[in-house]
Order: sequence, then C-alpha cells, then structure tokens
Amino acid sequence: MRVPDAPTGRLSDAWRACVGTGRVELALRRDYQDSLALLQREIGFRYIRGHGLLSDGMGVYRPYDWQGERRVQHSFTYVDQVVDAYLALGIRPFLELGFMPTELASGERTVFWWRGNVTPPRSHQEWADLVRSTMAHLIDRYGLDEVRTWPVEVWNEPNLADFWEGADEAAYHRLYEVTAGAVKEVDASLQVGGPAISPGADEWLERFAEFAERRGVPVDFVSKHAYTSGPAQHVPFGVHQTLAPASALLDQFAAARARLKGSKLAELPLHITEFNSSYRPDNPVHDTAFHAAYLAPVLAYGGDHADSFSYWTFSDMFEEAGVPTALFHGGFGLLTHRQVKKPTYHLYAFMARMGPDLLSRADDHLVTRHPDGRVTVLAWAPVDPTGEPSGPERHRLRLSVPIASGAAFVRRSSADEEHGNARTAWQRMGSPRSPRPHQLDVLHEAAEPARHHLRLPVEEGRVDLDLTLARHEVTLVELSPVEEEAPPWADEGRLLGREAPG
Amino acid sequence: MRVPDAPTGRLSDAWRACVGTGRVELALRRDYQDSLALLQREIGFRYIRGHGLLSDGMGVYRPYDWQGERRVQHSFTYVDQVVDAYLALGIRPFLELGFMPTELASGERTVFWWRGNVTPPRSHQEWADLVRSTMAHLIDRYGLDEVRTWPVEVWNEPNLADFWEGADEAAYHRLYEVTAGAVKEVDASLQVGGPAISPGADEWLERFAEFAERRGVPVDFVSKHAYTSGPAQHVPFGVHQTLAPASALLDQFAAARARLKGSKLAELPLHITEFNSSYRPDNPVHDTAFHAAYLAPVLAYGGDHADSFSYWTFSDMFEEAGVPTALFHGGFGLLTHRQVKKPTYHLYAFMARMGPDLLSRADDHLVTRHPDGRVTVLAWAPVDPTGEPSGPERHRLRLSVPIASGAAFVRRSSADEEHGNARTAWQRMGSPRSPRPHQLDVLHEAAEPARHHLRLPVEEGRVDLDLTLARHEVTLVELSPVEEEAPPWADEGRLLGREAPG
Amino acid sequence: MRVPDAPTGRLSDAWRACVGTGRVELALRRDYQDSLALLQREIGFRYIRGHGLLSDGMGVYRPYDWQGERRVQHSFTYVDQVVDAYLALGIRPFLELGFMPTELASGERTVFWWRGNVTPPRSHQEWADLVRSTMAHLIDRYGLDEVRTWPVEVWNEPNLADFWEGADEAAYHRLYEVTAGAVKEVDASLQVGGPAISPGADEWLERFAEFAERRGVPVDFVSKHAYTSGPAQHVPFGVHQTLAPASALLDQFAAARARLKGSKLAELPLHITEFNSSYRPDNPVHDTAFHAAYLAPVLAYGGDHADSFSYWTFSDMFEEAGVPTALFHGGFGLLTHRQVKKPTYHLYAFMARMGPDLLSRADDHLVTRHPDGRVTVLAWAPVDPTGEPSGPERHRLRLSVPIASGAAFVRRSSADEEHGNARTAWQRMGSPRSPRPHQLDVLHEAAEPARHHLRLPVEEGRVDLDLTLARHEVTLVELSPVEEEAPPWADEGRLLGREAPG
Amino acid sequence: MRVPDAPTGRLSDAWRACVGTGRVELALRRDYQDSLALLQREIGFRYIRGHGLLSDGMGVYRPYDWQGERRVQHSFTYVDQVVDAYLALGIRPFLELGFMPTELASGERTVFWWRGNVTPPRSHQEWADLVRSTMAHLIDRYGLDEVRTWPVEVWNEPNLADFWEGADEAAYHRLYEVTAGAVKEVDASLQVGGPAISPGADEWLERFAEFAERRGVPVDFVSKHAYTSGPAQHVPFGVHQTLAPASALLDQFAAARARLKGSKLAELPLHITEFNSSYRPDNPVHDTAFHAAYLAPVLAYGGDHADSFSYWTFSDMFEEAGVPTALFHGGFGLLTHRQVKKPTYHLYAFMARMGPDLLSRADDHLVTRHPDGRVTVLAWAPVDPTGEPSGPERHRLRLSVPIASGAAFVRRSSADEEHGNARTAWQRMGSPRSPRPHQLDVLHEAAEPARHHLRLPVEEGRVDLDLTLARHEVTLVELSPVEEEAPPWADEGRLLGREAPG
Repeated sequence: MRVPDAPTGRLSDAWRACVGTGRVELALRRDYQDSLALLQREIGFRYIRGHGLLSDGMGVYRPYDWQGERRVQHSFTYVDQVVDAYLALGIRPFLELGFMPTELASGERTVFWWRGNVTPPRSHQEWADLVRSTMAHLIDRYGLDEVRTWPVEVWNEPNLADFWEGADEAAYHRLYEVTAGAVKEVDASLQVGGPAISPGADEWLERFAEFAERRGVPVDFVSKHAYTSGPAQHVPFGVHQTLAPASALLDQFAAARARLKGSKLAELPLHITEFNSSYRPDNPVHDTAFHAAYLAPVLAYGGDHADSFSYWTFSDMFEEAGVPTALFHGGFGLLTHRQVKKPTYHLYAFMARMGPDLLSRADDHLVTRHPDGRVTVLAWAPVDPTGEPSGPERHRLRLSVPIASGAAFVRRSSADEEHGNARTAWQRMGSPRSPRPHQLDVLHEAAEPARHHLRLPVEEGRVDLDLTLARHEVTLVELSPVEEEAPPWADEGRLLGREAPG
Repeated sequence: MRVPDAPTGRLSDAWRACVGTGRVELALRRDYQDSLALLQREIGFRYIRGHGLLSDGMGVYRPYDWQGERRVQHSFTYVDQVVDAYLALGIRPFLELGFMPTELASGERTVFWWRGNVTPPRSHQEWADLVRSTMAHLIDRYGLDEVRTWPVEVWNEPNLADFWEGADEAAYHRLYEVTAGAVKEVDASLQVGGPAISPGADEWLERFAEFAERRGVPVDFVSKHAYTSGPAQHVPFGVHQTLAPASALLDQFAAARARLKGSKLAELPLHITEFNSSYRPDNPVHDTAFHAAYLAPVLAYGGDHADSFSYWTFSDMFEEAGVPTALFHGGFGLLTHRQVKKPTYHLYAFMARMGPDLLSRADDHLVTRHPDGRVTVLAWAPVDPTGEPSGPERHRLRLSVPIASGAAFVRRSSADEEHGNARTAWQRMGSPRSPRPHQLDVLHEAAEPARHHLRLPVEEGRVDLDLTLARHEVTLVELSPVEEEAPPWADEGRLLGREAPG
Repeated sequence: MRVPDAPTGRLSDAWRACVGTGRVELALRRDYQDSLALLQREIGFRYIRGHGLLSDGMGVYRPYDWQGERRVQHSFTYVDQVVDAYLALGIRPFLELGFMPTELASGERTVFWWRGNVTPPRSHQEWADLVRSTMAHLIDRYGLDEVRTWPVEVWNEPNLADFWEGADEAAYHRLYEVTAGAVKEVDASLQVGGPAISPGADEWLERFAEFAERRGVPVDFVSKHAYTSGPAQHVPFGVHQTLAPASALLDQFAAARARLKGSKLAELPLHITEFNSSYRPDNPVHDTAFHAAYLAPVLAYGGDHADSFSYWTFSDMFEEAGVPTALFHGGFGLLTHRQVKKPTYHLYAFMARMGPDLLSRADDHLVTRHPDGRVTVLAWAPVDPTGEPSGPERHRLRLSVPIASGAAFVRRSSADEEHGNARTAWQRMGSPRSPRPHQLDVLHEAAEPARHHLRLPVEEGRVDLDLTLARHEVTLVELSPVEEEAPPWADEGRLLGREAPG
Repeated sequence: MRVPDAPTGRLSDAWRACVGTGRVELALRRDYQDSLALLQREIGFRYIRGHGLLSDGMGVYRPYDWQGERRVQHSFTYVDQVVDAYLALGIRPFLELGFMPTELASGERTVFWWRGNVTPPRSHQEWADLVRSTMAHLIDRYGLDEVRTWPVEVWNEPNLADFWEGADEAAYHRLYEVTAGAVKEVDASLQVGGPAISPGADEWLERFAEFAERRGVPVDFVSKHAYTSGPAQHVPFGVHQTLAPASALLDQFAAARARLKGSKLAELPLHITEFNSSYRPDNPVHDTAFHAAYLAPVLAYGGDHADSFSYWTFSDMFEEAGVPTALFHGGFGLLTHRQVKKPTYHLYAFMARMGPDLLSRADDHLVTRHPDGRVTVLAWAPVDPTGEPSGPERHRLRLSVPIASGAAFVRRSSADEEHGNARTAWQRMGSPRSPRPHQLDVLHEAAEPARHHLRLPVEEGRVDLDLTLARHEVTLVELSPVEEEAPPWADEGRLLGREAPG
C-alpha cells in the first residue's frame, strides 16, 4: 500500500482524553500513584474518572449532633488528597457524583464488595447542599479556571438496578435536575452532564433529552458506556465471556448521536465514560495479547464518533469484586498491581508515540507523521473474537512510506503472545499468585515489548516496509531520517588491528 | 547538678523497639509510606504493630465453590505489599493475628468504623489452617531467619467485649491455644505470645499463665496495653478526658511482671504493645506540646520495666472512628496526614539523638554520651496533668556537663507551646480543616523545632549549662567538642575593608 | 507609614531574569546541579550566564589531521550535557561566547586558575566557523523557537587586559563584528549583544554604539557589569575590600542608558550581566548577613534601570582563584558547596515570594500584594558600608497594611547575624574547613531563616505592623486573610478534661 | 556436558573486587555518579581506583605566604566530596597516591590532556607531610576501622617515563619508602603497596621485593597492570590495535607471583590494579560485542591468579586523551556518557547474577548454583582475536543441568552483535556524535540484552540445555525450579468464552 505523502487529516486524541479508575479512594495508595505516574509518563491521559467520590470511604458527608440539633459537616480530607495527587501527576478529575453516603441514603441497597449505596437521597435538599459544598470547596482550593475544565457527571449507569435502585428513570431525572441545578448555582460555567448509561439502553438518551428540554435543565455533555461481552460463565475468582467484534464498540459510540439527532443534545460533546471488551474485573481476556489487537481499531477510529472514550480502567488496583487473589486475575488494568504492563498498555503507549498528522488508516494499520519528519506506523494483526484461528498464523502488511532522507532508521516495538506479554512468562513460572521479588523483576522484564532496530534504504523518497505480524501482534514502527555522521576513516574491518589496505 | 564523668549504664532502647499503626491495610497508602519513611529516617523504630491483618480489607481468607464443594484459598496479594513496604522502609512487622474474616466468623459483631469482626472462628480448624498458611507463606517469601524475628501476638484486647465477643476468657484461651499450636507447627522457633489485654485487667495475666502451664501451651512473650485517660466527654468529632499522671504508665508497665511473679511467664520478654495517654483517636491532647512533656519521663524510664512499649500510633492516617474531618483532630499520630510533625514526634526524634552511654537521669532530664565524645541532654518541663498551672511558667535546670575540649558547640532544639508546634500556627490561621498547599507549607515550617546554636566555654573539663524551659517545653541540647580551625588572619573587624591595625 | 490600598505599579522581575555561574563546565557536577535545582525551586531564575563555553575544558574546538590536511571538528559532547541540564532544571542559557580555544588562539595569555585563553583568534574565519557551527548545532538540538530566546553575548570584559589581550578596543570591535555576523548568518532572529564591560569603562559604550552604527553591525542588547568594591587587601586565601554604598550599583546600572542617550542602542534591552559588591571570589563579605541587607535596595530598585541584573554567582562551586580551601571562603555563591544557604540567598528567596502588585517601596521596605489578597512585606535594616555601627542596633518600622478580612495570619521569616546565617554557626563550631556530615546537618539547619507565626487583628481593613529589625536583618512578612473554621465547641480549656462550665 | 550435582568449589569474586575510573576529580560529576549508582545496583564492585587524587584539580596542596614565611595548607574540599560520594554509593576508594602537585613538583613534565605532573617531589619531607596529612584527615572523617580497609598504592606505572620522569627506578623506590613510612606513621594498620607497574616490566617486581627487604620497608600488597594490545595505528580521534589472546591476561596476572616466588612478597595479596584489552581510551574495540566475549574467560578464571583485577574503567567519563568527541569513541567505559550500557557491561552484570557455588567451568561456560536452588549458566562464544572468522558463525553448547523440581523456568539474557549492543543501533542511526534526547532513548533501549523466557521439562533431576550462541554472544541462562500454582480451572481454551467441553 502506498502511504500518501500529504496528511489526510489530524489524528484525534479522543483515545487519551480520559481513562477509568477503581473507586477514587484508591488514589490514596502508593502503588496506584506510582502506576499513574508511569502511565502519565508514557501515555499521558488528560482526565481520570472513577466511582465513589461521595461514598463512605471518602468521609465527605458527616452528620453530627450539637446542642440537641442534627447538623452536617462536609469534610474534604481525602477528596483533597486524591485531587492533589491527580493534579501533581498531570491528570484532571472527570468528576462522577456518587454514590450515596449511607447516612444520606433512603435505602440500604449497595453495589460491589466495597458497598457503594445506590439508593436516592433521603433528602434532595441535603444532597444539593452536598453537591454545592463539594463544588464550592473544589473551586476555593483549585480555582474556578481549573475546576470549570472538569466535567461533572451525575451518577453511574442509573439504567441498571445494581447501580440505581429499581433503575428508576424518573428518580434519576429528579436526581439529575437537583444535581445539575446545584452545580450551576455554584458557577454557571461548570460543565454538567449525564446520563452515564450502560450499553443497551440508548432509549434513555432520548428521554433524557426530552426531559432536559421540557424542564429546562442544563446539560453540557452526554455520556454513555460501551462493552462487548456476553453473559458470564463463572469459574472461581473469574469468568469467561464471548465477545462481539470490536466494531460493535464503534457502533455503540456512534449510536448515541444517532439517537439524539434532532434534539438539543445532539451537538453536545459526547463522552464514552467507560468502555472495554468485558465489563467484568475478573475476565482473563483483559490480560492477553488478543485484547490489545482486538482494541487497536477502536483506538484508531473511536475519535470519529466521540469526544472521549475512556478505557475502564488503568490499573488492576480495583476492588469491585473483592481484593484480587492473584497477580493476573483478569482485572481491567492496563497495569497489574506492582505495575507490570499488559499488552493493552502497549497499545496505548504505542498510540502515544503517533504523530499529529494522519497519513493513512485501514483495518490493520495507522500511519502518522511528526513535525520533525518522523513517520510512525501502528499495525496490528486482525483478530477473530470467537477465538477460532482465523486463517494464517501470521499477518503480512506491505507499506510504501514517504520519508525525506537517504536512509531511514527503523525502530520496531511489538507486543504479541510471546513478547511484551508478562502473563505468558507468569504462566511459565507456575502462575505464582503473589510473585516473589525476583519473579516480579522477571515479569517487569518480560512485559517490555520486543524491540528491533535496523536501517532501511530510501528510494525515490520512500521506504518499502514489509511487516510480518505474529498472532495477536500489535507493533509500532518508527522511521526516522538518517543524517550520516560517521567519519570517512570509520572502518569496522580494522577493529582488531588489521592494517588498512592502504 | 553535676553530671558524672563516667556512664552509669546503657540507655535502653525499648522506647523505639516498636510503634503502633492504624489497620495494616493503610500501609498500602502513599502518605502512610512517606510518613513512615520520615519516621524511620529521623527516629528509626524496629517493629510496627497494627490491627486487621486478617480482616476483610486484606482479602486473605477466600472461600469458593469448585465442583460443588466449598474450598478456601488464602490470598496474600495485600499482605505481601504491606510487608514488602515495611521491610523496604527498614521496619519489621510485629504480627497481630486478627480480626476474624467475615466468612470465617461465628457472629456478626464488629468494632470500628471499618467493621473488624470480633467473634470467634466458626471453625477452629479453618482458623488454624489460616494461621499456618499465613506463617508458611511469610517464611516462604521472607525466609525463616527473618520471620522468626517477628513476634506473633494472638488477637487484641480480648478482655473487652468491644474487641472479643463477650470478653470471653475461655474462648480466648482456646483461640490462643489453637493459634499458638498452628504457629509452632510451621516452625518451632517462631515466637508467639499474648494476651494483649487492655489496662485494668491484669488478672487475665495470672490466669493466662496458669492456663498456659496447665495445657502446656507455648508462650514466648507476654503483652499488655497501657493508657492513662478517664471517661470520654464528647463533643462533635472529638472527646476530652482527664489524665492520670504519666507515672501511671510506668506503673502499668511494671505491674505485669509483678502479677506474673512466680509463674513461668515472669521471665519472658514483656511487650507493652500499645500505650498512650488517651485511648481515643479524637482527643486533641495528642496534638499538644503538653503531650510531649507529659510522656518524656515515660520514654526515659520505660525501658526499666518492659522490653518494648509501643506508641499508639505513628500517624493520624487512622480510621477507627471514621475518616478524620480536620488536619488536627486529636489523632494518635506522631504525624498528621501529610506529615506535619506534632510535639510528641519531636520527643521521639530527640530521643533518637541520645547516645548509648547513660550519664544521668532525673525527673526533668536525661544525659547521655556518644562514643565520639558528644554529650546530649534531653530536658523537659514537668507537667501537671490536671491542667492546673503548676507553679512557675518557666522551669530552670542547671547542669555541669563533662566535655573533653577547650570549648563546646551547643545545638539546642526545642518544642513547646510556641515552637515545633504546628497546631498553634494552625489555630492562628483559622483552624482550616483541609489546609491549602501554601498553608501546609507554613505548617511544615511551623512544625520544626526552635533551634539555637552557641559556643560555651569549658572550664576544668565542664560546661555549665543553665537551661530555662518554657511551659511544656521538651528540649534537646547537644554539646560537641570544638576543634578550632580558624586561621590566625581571620578578623571580623576587617570584613568591610578597614585596614588591620598593623 | 500607611501602605496604599491600590497598587502603584507592577514589581519588575529584572532581579531574577538572570544569575551568574562559575565556568559552564562546572554544570556537569552533581553538587552544582543539586544547588541549581534548589535555587530554581525556591527562587526561579530565568537565565544563567557563565564563562568558558568555548574554552578547552568543554572540548568544542578539535583540530585534527586527515590525509595530510588540517581539519577541525566541533564537538558538543559537554555543551549538550550542560544545556540539557539547564533546560531540565527550568533555566535557559544566556550564552557568553568565549574564551579562546588554545588551538585557535593567537597568543598564550590566560586568565584564572583554570587558564582561559584571552587572546584574539588566530583566524577570524575559523572563529566565525566555530560560532556558526555552535549556534547551528544548538538550533538543531533545541529548536529555533527556543534558541532565539537565548541572548548571545560576545566575550567578557574586553576592557580589561586580564580578559582581553591588551584591552584592545579595536580588536574587540572586530571580534564583535565577526561574531555577530556569524550568529546572524545562522538565523537573523538570534539576539546578539555586548560589550560586557567591567565597571568604570562606560566610555566603551559610546564607542561601541558609534562603531556599530558606522559598520552596520547588528546589536540586539547592551551589556555591562557593576561592582562596588575597592582595592584588595590580601590575606592568605582571601581579601578584604572597602565597599561603596549599594546605591552605587544602581548608579552604575543607570549610567549605561545615560551614556547611550541619542544613539540607536539607547532603546535596546540593557543587561547587567554581572553585579555584586566585591568582584573577588574570596572576600568573606559575600557570606554575611550584612551582604543581604546591603543588596536589598538594589533588588528592590534595580528593575527601574535595567532589564536584568545578574547576581554573580549562584554557587561557591567556582574555581577562578583555585579550588576553595574552606566551606566559607568568601565565594560569590548564594549557596556554599553542599548547598548551605547564605543570607543573600534568603534575600532572593524572599523576593521570590513577593506579589506582582507593588503597593509601596522605600529605603527600608517593599510591599506587594498577590492576586489572592495576601500582602507581603520585605523589610531590611539599612546598612553602613563603612562598617561603622550606624546609629541604633535595631531598626524600627511601622506600617499600616491593608487587608480584607477580620484577622491576618502573619508569617515572618528573617535572616540576620544570628539567624539564617550558617557562617555564624560555622565559626562557633570552630570554622571547620571541610565540615563532617553531622556538622553539615547543623549548618543546613542553622542556615534556615528564623520563623515566627502570629495572628494580628484587622481594624478598619488594616493591620498595624510594628517591626523591629536586628542589625543586618532582612525580613519577609507575609499577611494572609484568616477565614475562621474553628467549630463552636473548640475549647482549649477542656484539653485536659476539665468539664465545660455550662 | 553433564554438570555435576555437587559444587566443585566457590566462585571467586576477585572480578568485582575493584573497578577503575577516570581521574577521581570526575567523581564530582553528576553523570559519573549516576553511572556509578547504576553500576553498583546491577554489578556491585567493592573498590574503585583512579589517578589524580593529589593532582592540582583536587586542590589539596596549597602553599601560601603568611608574615613573610612560606606555609602549606592541605585542603580536602574536593577529596571529601569524592569520598563521601563513593561511600554513599556503596563503594570504597582504592587509594592511589599521585600525581605530583605542581607546586611540590621538581619538574614540569606532565601526562595526559589534563596535565598530571609526573616528576618527583621537590621536597620528600613535604610529600611525606602531604601523605600523612591526607591519611590522618581521612581517618578523622571516616574512622580508622573504615580507612584501614582502603589499600594505599604508591604512584602509577613508574616503569614508564610518561608516568614517572625517566622511569627512574631508584627514585621510585625512594618515593615508595618515604610514602609507605608516612602512611604507617599515621597508623600501622593501614595497608600500603606497589609498584603498580605496567605490563612487560615484571623485573621491577623482583627488585621491588629486594629493595623492600633490604630497607625493611613495609609492603602489604603487590600491584601490577595487564593489557593485551599491540602498537597503535592512528586515525583521527582513535586508534586500532592488534590484540593478544585473552589468555595472555591470565598469564600476566599469574606471572607476578611466579616472579616473586621465594621473596617475602610472594604471599601477599596481589592486585591487578588495571586490566583491559587495549590500554588506549580511543580504541573502538572497547565498545563491541567482541570485547565482552573476549573477556568472558578472564572473568571466569582471573580469580585463580589474583586477589583482584580491576577493569579499566567503568565509564567513558574519562579525559586522558581529551574530552570525547562522540558518544561511541572507543572509551574504556562499561558505560558511555549518559549511561548507555556496552556489551562488556552485560558481561559484568551477568557475572553479578552467578551464584556462590561453582558447579562447572570450561572454555565456553561457567555454571553456578544459588542457595535457593537456582542454577545459573554463563556461556560465551569463543573469539578469535585476530578478527578472522573462526569457523562457524554459531557456537553450540549442550549442558545437562541438575535442578530439583518438576520443571524449570528459564530466563535467558544475551548480548551479541545485534542485541544488547547500542553501538550497532548507533551506527544504524548515522553515528550521531552527540545524540538527541530521543536518540538516547533508543540507544538505552537498544543497549538492553535480548531476553527470552521459557519453561523446560526436568527429567531425572536434569534439564537438557541446548544453547546456540551467535557470533560474539555472551549469554546468561538462569534456571529456577517451578512450583505450579495454576488452579485446576485454568483453561486457555475458554478465554474467549467457548464453553468448557463439559
């Protein structure tokens, strides 16, 4: 394939606009912060979104009695520690307001091992106070200019009874209205949105749009989630699930604006505030090379359909189904505990090395150029999500790449079943649930991509790139113009003292 | 007072043998680890002890079904992260086995905001399996030579119904027997002990000794706790309490061996595995200069009565009464969240700068010498625990200190109401519950001790030290021999170019 | 004095536009980089200027023979390491082109212990090649947008025979013309200037202007130096000198534009590329509290006369007079080796905490306001540079400061003879030439400013500040509005459990 | 080959007893310290030896005039910074006393670009004072217990006129006698030795022994150097040389004791205080994969002949032939500037992962066991130092390795022409003399060894290891016993949700 000389557009960075996290309280942890620091150094997300900002573990809503009267204090001891850490790591919070503080809740239903209360507030007035107080505190501490860049999403997946008692749509609309109103009272320039629905419930979007218009309720962005997995087949501490093709994710992204067509919400920013293959934190597919190759086209094309799509989640430090029982346990994370990179991490890290100018894009590759002339190719072996071996074991791709110099230095980085794949090494060492320090060293080593360097000739301004990809490989090929500085006397033949022929 | 020239003994370091911590799960947090790193750099404790090693938050006890059968997996994902962190910070765990995993518990009673289950095991067999598995795992990972240096304490304060259902002594004895047996099965050289009782229940010690002897149960050390506070007078998010004189702590330490006199346990190591003034994590007395001066004699004399006495706890990162609502909230910590030092921190840091040779000790001071000839004086203003101003505002102390040189360089560091006392500054800045970054900077600054440096003459091998201590002051005075290196031409009078008189 | 409510202008930051350094090769050292990191964290200079970029130690000019012919390679191994380090530390190079590589020099005359060759080039053609090659390399590595922000100064103090053979003005003009031409050939947007003269030679400025105009030579900025010391009275490893009043520095700054009035150079940026009291790196006055108080008005007023005035130099890591023989040796540094802060460091660090809005300025103080309402006062005790005690030992200053709240939190930081003054402590400990580690700890401690915190009442929007300054004191007083958050139940009287009266 | 089950001895660690460095003044540099930190983390040398401790750049010998009289101050400003840095990095100085301070020298002859004076002292009395003062200062600062572990070597290669004026043996004996006497005067337990001769002058050893015996001069160890290169064929900024086979190094090591047989020096510790292939810091052979394979047998067998053999030198931060002009320039370093690892670095890092028990040793491999049962194989492809391709391109090695478990996890790390070989990548990118930051990233990446992980079956307690080594490959194979923890339900076939067959 002949890659064009001139850009065909800009590469969207919707893919790194946001990333998901386990409940925000976990941001107090060291491994979490170290993991996020690594992520920001090598990938660089702009926002981070997680549950539980107002849940009991954050200690925000604190009723007390004083002189015989019930009062409430809003405490931000942990909120501030979490947000300070985020900002210090160069990432901003995408605020999700939820779940319900136990003492403000109208019921006892909880979700997750860590028991997030999913019932409406006992008092919408007190909830509004809590929201106002939280936003006002954040502005006071971080400044309005900063906080107005943080989207505020109302609740999470209210269309599921697990997350919102009875999946009560009217109750959600009421919560949204009260919450959005409280946010805007603090400052009209703050951005509020929803309805943060799970896949398969897009009809909520239309009704959300109607409701918002009917009641004149402020909406600054629309949000939904996308997953492709089927029903869970349980094993101890894990599940297996079938997956729809990755294109189903792009379809889910695109469906939102289609649904909203004609409404006032149609032109608003669309945030896919969660996406992944499986929605389960104990599905080993997340840990595989397959997973990276499966998601590659989603990262390449997702920006065509949404303003952000947020990988759920950056780390296996995540406790919705309890404390993980083994290093590799099917967690969502791009990183395991203790920061072992998974193949999908590499997909993101490779994307982060692409240039701004889009030269070419297809089912198995993406080509970009940097301002300094480097050309970067991301290629992947297309996958079959049924797990049936799909045709040949190896995928071949030939590209004619434009480059402006006499030769190109080529750096290739790859993750596949064998390389950049610590899970394979982990299995070979006996699947140690809690690896010892020297095993962790090996896993960190095994997690690094395979790397090769070569020099290729440039002919008529082009390099012929002939790539063979292994099963489930994702590969990054970076081509840099060579400026030769070797002196005329450089002579490898004389290294061991043989006289120059004279 | 004339400090003797020759040592009268060695200074015990029982004061830094161990320190307490909030539940061990908190060790996953960054601020916790940063705090502990600071502590270890400036104080250097040898062991750390906290609750909850086996509680749900650590994710250790994990039953599951497989092929129709109930099985249990023991998972050490977090245990290893915690212990790895401790060892990396140069401190060893003093293991406390408890509380009960919910799924192994015989009842539902819990203690603390974080709900530690305090009921006996549903199956003593499964409990023994859990203990064996835990100890075997630790040995596998850290080596027997290491783990046999870690004391293993069975449960916490079983004499209180809050911590052990019904304060059932027979049930505790049974738990102890099963636990100690399981520990010793793993390796006979492991050290196991108890009964970790709270103050006012020393009769448990005698019965524990009888029981152990009668049943031939292994006991390698005896443990108990010591506190001096009276009943709680509640205010929102806090309490006030009267305190007994600090000498009551020494009495409580000493009482254990007195009780055990004649039993086989009398000669065993005695560990005071918790001590403090108030046993409440929300009593502001912990934050005060008073508190440092109050505890000073306990640190100076405690080693006469016990092999360790463990300050409860090193950090305000502690959640037994919920997430703290303000930076200063009466927490036990030597450090607040975000590592602001309290006056009692300085007491410990000063103790850590004392030398090994004890020259003198009295009600208001301690004098030691280092091998290199430096003499170090710790002095404190005696306090009245009723809060009545006790005589003069200032305390005067005159010491004649032996030092072998022509002059002494004197470095004095002090904490009192005004200095080394961030709480005072915090109140002046308006008691901000969650201080902003620049306020935290000021608090860190205000938390540093007052420091003065001077040179004193030595006459006949002695320096006359005339110390005036402010209310609640604890002061460290370090005297170093001066070796004069100033050249003969040094002349401050010529700094601005006035000609030498010639 | 009543400080106005409204700003009278902006505080210039010419004082921190640039700082001097020992020869740039020293930037390879660790202590240097650690010192600069500290400086940048607490002060934040924008540029750094030092000698020797092209001297032998940097290894740039490298002639060789190949096939019987003399050739030259320009090597940037160390230049890149130095500039990389600067940029990583957030500071940019203010390039000084000099001295002459030995193998390009026309003579053998050198300056300094480290032997910088100060003779004209043997070949102006080769010198121009060297300049072009250097600038082109920098642009290639760092980008034109970056490098065009770096001023390029031609040589150093050519009016002194020590620095430029024969102080030959015509030869300097030729060098300037060749150099400026070479710079502009690389890119016309690069900024080039001179003549970098030492004090007392302002007549060079007029002739430089004439020459530049006559020859059409590009000049983008004008530079000169300023010092106030008299002749050196030598002692071993040191000198003493009289000093002119500090106002003489301001006069020297101002004189340049006065001289250039009417010429095309009059409106160009004026950079005082070196200033200090004494021009000697072994005059102990640099180490004193006197020195900070002496320079305080220069920092406060210097920006009225110049676009930058660069303190010579930030660190005692400096070898013009040889390797320093003692920790305090009269070096120029704001910091000693091993990063002990001197009083003049504090003057700069205090300045860095001033706000952008200037409220008041006088002979003994400067008052500014931050956007968040904090008011900051820098005050100093006026000094007598003859060293005669000038009137009272203490200086008193009363200010009525506007502040918008019910109370003000006041943070005062001071350096004087006794505080923030490690040299005093160092003398007391015997002036150890190479202090031991524990002595260094004490010196770092003694180098910190004295700090006090208090709360003052605000009446009619004003705080009465009554400041007493010790001899040679420089003090920073920061007033912050207090927002009171102490709860109604806070009661210090109940700390020790006395019942509330109620 | 069948590797024995039982150890045949202990692996000597003479190979890491010491490493060489460019002149010690360079230890002040950051890149140097960062490089040494990396080295100590991954290799862990015990001592470090370099020239120039007393040369002008260290500023130690400082004559001055006072009241008309010449005096000398000994200054340790830089000595202390250097030694502090070494000890902080966990390495001790192997002191080499030299070269001559200019102001104490009897002549002007210098060696190296940095001009070390190589003439005898003008006054042996003053030299002895300098030595005494230096040793006394070190003891004062670091303690006698520490300093007595630091060997003190007198001068460097006095048998060469380049290093000792006239290669005057009698003058060296005199210098030795005066120096050793001065050292022992400070403390008789300090270790002093020599004569630090270059290769080809072993007759000096016998005469040194005779002289020492005749004069009763103390000698605590004997030292010499070993190199294998022939005459230099010059190119600009470099040389090429023929090399003798590596066994010549072992012969040179062994020759010392042979020569000394019968003398009192024969039983003393023998330190090869420098060794390498070429003695030139600009011979590109040092940068190659060949070099690692060439030296592998020397590391494996060297400990049979000497108590230490010190690789000259750990870093390319080295200036004897001037500032290096390109990243790869044939420097001695295990690391280039900016810490790019060379193949010989990997040889050392691989050696550092060998166990203490020696199982097998031969011309192409070394096998050891760790106490925990891991078996480690170092293998290398034998090289032909004439550069003639010696037989097949690939070297094959079959080993039957004893291991106590059902399976072995195998981690293989390799450096050869293509892998672990940044120089190859550097050449492909155009041999950039001063690589840009993103090129340095690639070089750091390319410098890492190739890594592979697999699982091998164990049969009858043995693993069959069939290794193929590429040209110039050095490979480390680590075999760990596998303890299988994968649960019975683990089933890769179900990853994508295919139902278990039932």
